[in-house]
Amino acid sequence: MKLYDSQGAPNPRRVRMFMAEKGISCENQQFNIVKGENLDPAFLAKSPRGMLPALELDDGTVIDETIAICRYFEETQPEPPLMGTDPKSKAIITSRERQMEFDGLLSAADAFRNSFPGFAKRGLGGSVGSVEAIPALAERGKAMVSRFYENLDKQLANSTYVAGDEFSIADITALCSIDFAQGAARVPMPESCKNLRRWYDAVSARPSAKA
Amino acid sequence: MKLYDSQGAPNPRRVRMFMAEKGISCENQQFNIVKGENLDPAFLAKSPRGMLPALELDDGTVIDETIAICRYFEETQPEPPLMGTDPKSKAIITSRERQMEFDGLLSAADAFRNSFPGFAKRGLGGSVGSVEAIPALAERGKAMVSRFYENLDKQLANSTYVAGDEFSIADITALCSIDFAQGAARVPMPESCKNLRRWYDAVSARPSAKA
Repeated sequence: MKLYDSQGAPNPRRVRMFMAEKGISCENQQFNIVKGENLDPAFLAKSPRGMLPALELDDGTVIDETIAICRYFEETQPEPPLMGTDPKSKAIITSRERQMEFDGLLSAADAFRNSFPGFAKRGLGGSVGSVEAIPALAERGKAMVSRFYENLDKQLANSTYVAGDEFSIADITALCSIDFAQGAARVPMPESCKNLRRWYDAVSARPSAKA
Repeated sequence: MKLYDSQGAPNPRRVRMFMAEKGISCENQQFNIVKGENLDPAFLAKSPRGMLPALELDDGTVIDETIAICRYFEETQPEPPLMGTDPKSKAIITSRERQMEFDGLLSAADAFRNSFPGFAKRGLGGSVGSVEAIPALAERGKAMVSRFYENLDKQLANSTYVAGDEFSIADITALCSIDFAQGAARVPMPESCKNLRRWYDAVSARPSAKA
């Protein structure tokens, strides 16, 4: 088993953090996305979309998409559960995880990819070819990240973790989204978001956050 | 149990089709998204993001996000399985389903929401407030839909269904994406995509496609 990985990018970090929470490790190959190493023909032959992370199973099957890789690990090693334990908790965690991704991570990605000079012709990730950055989309992304912080702060007034009282994959996606939003997309968490800060400090202190 | 639904919108159709494949039915409330009925305060009190579909369980829990609702039904009624039966098939179906959503449905949504006059100030779905449409994003979306058709056509040269030899949720997302892309986003499937057409005709003929 081999993880195609990129240190510094938010989606690969989601998988590494998920693996660390479960104590899973495997062979790892690093790619520099800014340098375009994920578009190398040898990698595209294995994973045509050129997206990272991707997981190669021992039979040669290559799976891309963060959540699909996490699903594989959740099924092969259920403990500790990170995606719920019964129909209702599985649905709630899936919903909250998606909210973190769509409202947080995708907004930050819009902000970063459409403003970073190195991606001026790479407005979308992977092997889609030349895609012009759209400055208005970077602005929209930044505004949506700010909204995401405010909403998550309100929600965390009523729960320890993003999807309730238990740590889950929704917290992993939220943390990786926020660190990416604050770093690459340059939208800091507001000081006023006290609930968010309490949660952020707690989740950042988990050993898996260093993965 | 009650489904908050919108006839004509692609994400609610994904859930209705998933339910039809499993023979599940429940109470249904319709919303006209173009008229902004999903932004009515009574609905936002239940589901703050204002996104459709949403599922209200008998205990009052409201779950939004299509894939979270499908996860609930897959867990409560596993037959027929639509999200895989073992770790590898679950991961592959999740991956392919995500590819259909990200490469197909989100591209079509970018094309539609940023060109439809009724959404000139509603460039994003749900309760995000006023968001200006971005014409360049509509153009990017159309180009990405065309690319999606070509890629899926190539993939379907080697498999009966989107994620292999079995019908799955990946086919549901693909069909709903394509019908939305051809209709609302006005990007027709190319005549040259013979494999795609073969698959499209077969999946469109399933009774669930009328849901």
